[in-house]
Amino acid sequence: MKAEIIAIGSELLTPYRLDTNSLFLTDRLNRLGIEVARKAVVGDSHADLCAAFRESLNRVEVVISIGGLGPTEDDLTREALVEVLGRKLKLNDAVLRGIEERFRRYGRTMSDTNRKQAMVPDGADILENKRGTAPGLWIGDASRFIILLPGPPNELQGMWPQAEERLQRHAGSVRLHTRELRVAGMPESEIDARIAPIYTSYPDAQTTILAAPGEIQIHLRAWNADAAAAEKLLSEITERIAMAIGESVYTLEGETLEDVVARQLNLNSATIAAAESCTGGLVAERLTRVPGSSTFFVGGMVCYANEMKTGWLDVPRELIEAKGAVSAEVAAALADAVRRSAGATLGLGITGIAGPGGGSPEKPTGTVHIALSNGAATKERRFHFPGDRERVRWQASQMALDMVRRYFLYGSGGPAKG
Amino acid sequence: MKAEIIAIGSELLTPYRLDTNSLFLTDRLNRLGIEVARKAVVGDSHADLCAAFRESLNRVEVVISIGGLGPTEDDLTREALVEVLGRKLKLNDAVLRGIEERFRRYGRTMSDTNRKQAMVPDGADILENKRGTAPGLWIGDASRFIILLPGPPNELQGMWPQAEERLQRHAGSVRLHTRELRVAGMPESEIDARIAPIYTSYPDAQTTILAAPGEIQIHLRAWNADAAAAEKLLSEITERIAMAIGESVYTLEGETLEDVVARQLNLNSATIAAAESCTGGLVAERLTRVPGSSTFFVGGMVCYANEMKTGWLDVPRELIEAKGAVSAEVAAALADAVRRSAGATLGLGITGIAGPGGGSPEKPTGTVHIALSNGAATKERRFHFPGDRERVRWQASQMALDMVRRYFLYGSGGPAKG
Repeated sequence: MKAEIIAIGSELLTPYRLDTNSLFLTDRLNRLGIEVARKAVVGDSHADLCAAFRESLNRVEVVISIGGLGPTEDDLTREALVEVLGRKLKLNDAVLRGIEERFRRYGRTMSDTNRKQAMVPDGADILENKRGTAPGLWIGDASRFIILLPGPPNELQGMWPQAEERLQRHAGSVRLHTRELRVAGMPESEIDARIAPIYTSYPDAQTTILAAPGEIQIHLRAWNADAAAAEKLLSEITERIAMAIGESVYTLEGETLEDVVARQLNLNSATIAAAESCTGGLVAERLTRVPGSSTFFVGGMVCYANEMKTGWLDVPRELIEAKGAVSAEVAAALADAVRRSAGATLGLGITGIAGPGGGSPEKPTGTVHIALSNGAATKERRFHFPGDRERVRWQASQMALDMVRRYFLYGSGGPAKG
Repeated sequence: MKAEIIAIGSELLTPYRLDTNSLFLTDRLNRLGIEVARKAVVGDSHADLCAAFRESLNRVEVVISIGGLGPTEDDLTREALVEVLGRKLKLNDAVLRGIEERFRRYGRTMSDTNRKQAMVPDGADILENKRGTAPGLWIGDASRFIILLPGPPNELQGMWPQAEERLQRHAGSVRLHTRELRVAGMPESEIDARIAPIYTSYPDAQTTILAAPGEIQIHLRAWNADAAAAEKLLSEITERIAMAIGESVYTLEGETLEDVVARQLNLNSATIAAAESCTGGLVAERLTRVPGSSTFFVGGMVCYANEMKTGWLDVPRELIEAKGAVSAEVAAALADAVRRSAGATLGLGITGIAGPGGGSPEKPTGTVHIALSNGAATKERRFHFPGDRERVRWQASQMALDMVRRYFLYGSGGPAKG
């Protein structure tokens, strides 16, 4: 089966807002073996809505609309659909009572405009909304299914299982199976050169290579009614791709780099501390995104001013003067000092020039030194990242985390040797 | 004039990627007085592409496609368009030479597949691409304009001025004028209750209220050929809305909260340091996003473990034991200690429970204490933020920055009194 998604709302046609609900829906539809063939964004106009429903219903079996179910004049989804289908809207008493009840619970009186939300097309099923006033609607016959969902993501996601259950009865046995590899520290062109001979030899799986800041994501997808066969196929491709790329692959399961590093630290009963200059706390912030990060993250210092490098971490003023704040030596001193000061297993030190200003011919904007110390030895790398301030900072945090990941790949003696 | 945007690429119909180019294009089109009436996302299928072009060309004067101009078999945009228009593709020698030249410059040989990118529809203008191999295309007559752009955002944005210049000759004199107010620390329902009587009385301006994490954004838009009249109208509405909401409005110009706080600190020749626990460095990271932040941001400590609160900032162990790490007293001690230790004008201290675990009946997940110290006095606030770990952390960083902003609103004596 194929589906189309229509996102409704004039605010989605401004420069300020994107429809993101369709990503959630696509994921859920794909798992049912339903492919999304097209997406559209239309404004709050009766004629545009009618045209969008008509076109989609002519093309695919499953049509899902998002939004336009609210109580205001702008909310026209129900009216457009019944016009297209030649049906009528009727007041549904049960829905009306539910809305009134919801208002009572929050100590408010339902306004007359909300009655509109209790209008239901002939023959439609109600998808109950426990998180808001607008119920969703399901209109289905043997071969065609129309699902109207509200725009707020928590409401849409909350009621989706009711639509899914109904779709499941009609979906075929084909299901989508997926894998996601992520790679840090290797350019897309090199990755593609290494793995194109592999993925092109598997016509039954789709491979999508996406470049994200500081990493490349490789998505594998196989549609198959035979789950075991699909999983076997994907495992085989995943293994071959991972072998071809090597240790730059940091996950086979779509995890974030901070999740992987967190797991390594926990598995090794190791802790970490960070002293950051140009990244301004981004490495600490990423590591502490991980729930339960207090088991491995001790603390961090953002030594932005040179006085803090000296005052907080005893980096010798003479060293900063001799080598410059952005230098291998200062990165190493920061890494070792923060490790010692925090009593952590590992210490990260990061110093660089994020831009836009501050660059020089010897140390252009984007130059970043990252050091990792385990007390016995310190590994240091120099990078030159392209892009603006935000991109430089993100890439620096990515490479800092990746140095920790590689440290654990090689065992504790690693960083001194690389 | 009205436009439709067609984003092309099967990867945009997966759960992994959204078309974001249309936000850039919408902004630029709106400034020319061109409204975006509809957006579509279609996969790499000849039939789907032809259908999308046909439908859009039947509805609007300006049709813009994004993507599908690459060298591979999947790239079908040119072919679909000439079929719809009944035109032919011809090899353009100048474009071919440009592509060959680009490959030479990077020391590579052009493959035969790239010749496809030099195929140009009859009567089309070339939009030169200085950042990639795929040129854009412009097909225009007196009343209908088709623009084909490549998918990579930097290439699309780089060549857009060439399309804009051509559109400008045909666009009417109506232009879009905009304002964006942002509000921190007031719920959307209260804002709407205060300002609905205002914005509904101005039918010539569109008002869109958008909820973003930790803030509400109010977008005002007016289409008018008379720039002075539009600006006067928007200034009047902006002023009335700002008055109705009061000091919770932190910008009238769509700035970020860290930008506003940075400006205040610089204007007051003040500096700041932060000691963060549950936000894990997010406040430091946000303040250092601002270019040139070394003028006002001295440094930060992420005192994640209690030992770091004690070891790095001398927060008495007894205080932590008596009041708990998440307490007004510890937040205040962190704020004052980091201020003193960094020699900054102001110190922020943040401690809380970001979740998912760690909550208790007295201190549920989402409880955050934030303190701001100027040495003479310390202001402390307790919050209970809803949502998951990421949302709690973001809202805490937002309210911390907002406390700094409000401090400067009241003058330096403020925080002690509030």
